[in-house]
Amino acid sequence: MSLNLSLQQIVEQLGGSFTGNPETQIARVGSLALAQAGAISFFNDTKYTTQLNNTAASAVIIMPEHGALTTLPKIITDNPYAYFAKVSLLLNPVNKATVGIHVSAVVDSSVYVPASCSIGANVVVEANVVFGKNVIIGAGCIIERNASIEDNTVLEANVTVKYGCQIGQNCHLFSGCVIGNDGFGYAEEAGEDNTKCWVKIPQVGRVIIHNNVDIGANTTIDRGTIDDTVIEEGVKLDNLIQIAHNCRIGAHTVIAGCTGIAGSAIIGKHCKIGGAAMILGHLSIADNVTISPGSMIMRSISNAGTYTALMPSQEHEAWLKTAANIRHLTQLTDKIKTLEVAIAQLTLQNQSKPSKNK
Amino acid sequence: MSLNLSLQQIVEQLGGSFTGNPETQIARVGSLALAQAGAISFFNDTKYTTQLNNTAASAVIIMPEHGALTTLPKIITDNPYAYFAKVSLLLNPVNKATVGIHVSAVVDSSVYVPASCSIGANVVVEANVVFGKNVIIGAGCIIERNASIEDNTVLEANVTVKYGCQIGQNCHLFSGCVIGNDGFGYAEEAGEDNTKCWVKIPQVGRVIIHNNVDIGANTTIDRGTIDDTVIEEGVKLDNLIQIAHNCRIGAHTVIAGCTGIAGSAIIGKHCKIGGAAMILGHLSIADNVTISPGSMIMRSISNAGTYTALMPSQEHEAWLKTAANIRHLTQLTDKIKTLEVAIAQLTLQNQSKPSKNK
Amino acid sequence: MSLNLSLQQIVEQLGGSFTGNPETQIARVGSLALAQAGAISFFNDTKYTTQLNNTAASAVIIMPEHGALTTLPKIITDNPYAYFAKVSLLLNPVNKATVGIHVSAVVDSSVYVPASCSIGANVVVEANVVFGKNVIIGAGCIIERNASIEDNTVLEANVTVKYGCQIGQNCHLFSGCVIGNDGFGYAEEAGEDNTKCWVKIPQVGRVIIHNNVDIGANTTIDRGTIDDTVIEEGVKLDNLIQIAHNCRIGAHTVIAGCTGIAGSAIIGKHCKIGGAAMILGHLSIADNVTISPGSMIMRSISNAGTYTALMPSQEHEAWLKTAANIRHLTQLTDKIKTLEVAIAQLTLQNQSKPSKNK
Repeated sequence: MSLNLSLQQIVEQLGGSFTGNPETQIARVGSLALAQAGAISFFNDTKYTTQLNNTAASAVIIMPEHGALTTLPKIITDNPYAYFAKVSLLLNPVNKATVGIHVSAVVDSSVYVPASCSIGANVVVEANVVFGKNVIIGAGCIIERNASIEDNTVLEANVTVKYGCQIGQNCHLFSGCVIGNDGFGYAEEAGEDNTKCWVKIPQVGRVIIHNNVDIGANTTIDRGTIDDTVIEEGVKLDNLIQIAHNCRIGAHTVIAGCTGIAGSAIIGKHCKIGGAAMILGHLSIADNVTISPGSMIMRSISNAGTYTALMPSQEHEAWLKTAANIRHLTQLTDKIKTLEVAIAQLTLQNQSKPSKNK
Repeated sequence: MSLNLSLQQIVEQLGGSFTGNPETQIARVGSLALAQAGAISFFNDTKYTTQLNNTAASAVIIMPEHGALTTLPKIITDNPYAYFAKVSLLLNPVNKATVGIHVSAVVDSSVYVPASCSIGANVVVEANVVFGKNVIIGAGCIIERNASIEDNTVLEANVTVKYGCQIGQNCHLFSGCVIGNDGFGYAEEAGEDNTKCWVKIPQVGRVIIHNNVDIGANTTIDRGTIDDTVIEEGVKLDNLIQIAHNCRIGAHTVIAGCTGIAGSAIIGKHCKIGGAAMILGHLSIADNVTISPGSMIMRSISNAGTYTALMPSQEHEAWLKTAANIRHLTQLTDKIKTLEVAIAQLTLQNQSKPSKNK
Repeated sequence: MSLNLSLQQIVEQLGGSFTGNPETQIARVGSLALAQAGAISFFNDTKYTTQLNNTAASAVIIMPEHGALTTLPKIITDNPYAYFAKVSLLLNPVNKATVGIHVSAVVDSSVYVPASCSIGANVVVEANVVFGKNVIIGAGCIIERNASIEDNTVLEANVTVKYGCQIGQNCHLFSGCVIGNDGFGYAEEAGEDNTKCWVKIPQVGRVIIHNNVDIGANTTIDRGTIDDTVIEEGVKLDNLIQIAHNCRIGAHTVIAGCTGIAGSAIIGKHCKIGGAAMILGHLSIADNVTISPGSMIMRSISNAGTYTALMPSQEHEAWLKTAANIRHLTQLTDKIKTLEVAIAQLTLQNQSKPSKNK
């Protein structure tokens, strides 16, 4: 349940100034378009002026230069969105997990669980797992032998951490993610009947996750073949991402959902990788590179910048022609060469002919 | 185990008419190609006439205009495939879950479980969850505080429903799906050492799922940032789909596997989105739009129709040339302009020269 | 913890010859670049000679013709990487699961569990499941009624096997994968209010997995609509792959992560399918076909070879032009035709004009 705070109480806690009734009660946050009475919203772009005029919100967070646009009770601040995020956190405090070990959890006797930790229902913790302080393990998580999870890290329900992996401080792992799965490594060998088959390469590295990393729902990060797969500090990964064995993701890089990073790729720091992008293996991406959504990167990138590899969308009938033309692009290019030669010849011939005016 | 029904019994229950022995026994459904004696199959396209002629099925469901194509016992109906689906359901009744709460389930004492519900082994149900009638919760599911699940909805094994989310009536959630995970929202801020880092935006909306929605295995639907993420009535989602925060998926839209819908996208009603498609955030797709598989949609679409964005596949050697030509498409376009100018000039010059015939 | 083996002990077990101190102690494997004292590495390509010169490894596995490149203790063999894989397995023996049924597991009374099997914590095994010998079921797995799992197969933590599915011998299913989910099959029908809606087609086939198959984390394989979905012997599937209903994946085919195979596709034997590829439904791929990563295959492929469908990546500004040109490729093609006609005309006219020289 949300708390109720007055406008005055909010400003006392978060700073800024306000105009309007100080006793205006705020129960929740809301967007201008959908907010109801009791909600506070924010305004930071004049293209939403119509929404501001029509909003049912009880108050709005707004920049000084926009203050005159509304007669609603308002909080005035230079960065309305950041302020709004803080009000949201104030009104929606993170649910306090109950400390202690749920009676249904299966925790190996070798494991020390600090009193500040919360181990949820049906959790399984295998031998020699190490927990820091204030760790929260959601219901149904499985943490295999020799893994370690440092201070203040939260695992949501149904996370799997495989043996020996290390999760840093203040990390947040979301439901269904799998950390430390065997990498996809096989060597092709002639089988007994002389047909080729696949022999598994043992995957003996680990996954090492530094501090302040978030990992989305159903995302998978594979353990290294020999050395470790490493996710550096402050990396944020969305849902349904695949990070293959031996990758290294540089600090503060963000990767949107459905992206795949193939084996042994090294991604720089402060990169932004769009959703459903694909980065091939054994290549390096420099710091501060942006990859557009849905783009396949097949070569290393050594300079910061934005890189894209996308077919534009078209109505299907138009696309059918485009696709046919793309298949014939080589012939098209050849035709242009032929035309260039023909025109060069014609021009030469023309110079050798008398003009009417002569 | 399947039931045995006669042709007559089927028609009595599902309508339509039949010709042939009313006592023909039907034990299972089958495709024309693989059906054995005792199976009923269907025929709805004359391109399968050879399969119809060779089938070992004991009966076939067929349109009136195709009835003469076979001498097999047959059920005649305008929509053979839909009829076939109903026969299949009749012969393969859904497994009846045992009502009651499995002894290993962990159900918070605040929760009322109607007697018609089935709560499976190792399920975790947190405080204040609300169940409708005839709800089935498969083994290992985790349903967090304040969530609600309405009448006749089924959760297969290992589903995670996060706090406060609402699932409508007659929904079917498949194994491994995660409903209500935090949306991927971060604001970039200068850190203490003056490098940029990411501050999490609280995600305080919910996921609201209307009636008759199916959600595939390992699919993830994120909760809204402020307002809710909404899946309207009758939507069908396949496996491994990512629906980001604040999206709204219109009624009766179907989305095939591996598709990603980025944040705040609004998808119309009765859309058909192909597998591995990708729709960028903050855009709108009109009703009755079809997106081809694998196509990236970067702009809003305001008219019904089919839209495609795909590279055609080629043998790798041919593709290498195509890719090089695509990289040089701008130069190619420039060359054509140059050629057009050259030809215009030549044509002009030519008009000013005498012809032989003169 | 790893074992310690001397160089001599390794060669006694795995063959090959060595030079250097036979008592050199090896505790782990490592890459040339990152190995520390106590590690053994391998060298099989002279482009890594600098790494060989600088390595801190205590020994190296090397081909006869490269032996002179290092003074380190070394094992000499024709295939250093395969030898290295075997040393790795020797030093990192697979963790021996404890045989028996964990006290927290919920196993239906109808199920016979051979004494050689290991059933982990919080596992759920429903009625009439059949286990072979030496089967290992990781914590939190759910195995539904009538499924069967044959000798020596391992399910890692949190795997879901749906009712009636069959898993062969020596298979390895990784965390979060879902075997036998309902296929995505609906028939469009006019609803009561005359708008179209979707009627579910019962999915009554199974998933049949042959021997020696590996299935990656969070991968989903759907059960057949009528007939079975089949994964043949020796297939290796990476993480986050979707195999839709009615597919057949041929023996020894490998598929990299994030790939989608749509319904009723038939994939040949010994194929190699790159990551994030997409194969449409109702088509056939011949044996020994390689599909490049990220490529969409829209038609059947009847000849072995490598097939690709990718946009090349570019800096974003260059790509914007490329994308515009692709949208206008049809006009471009038309322009070239116009130019060809114009030049043909000019050439003809030119032949009818006197040259200066005449």
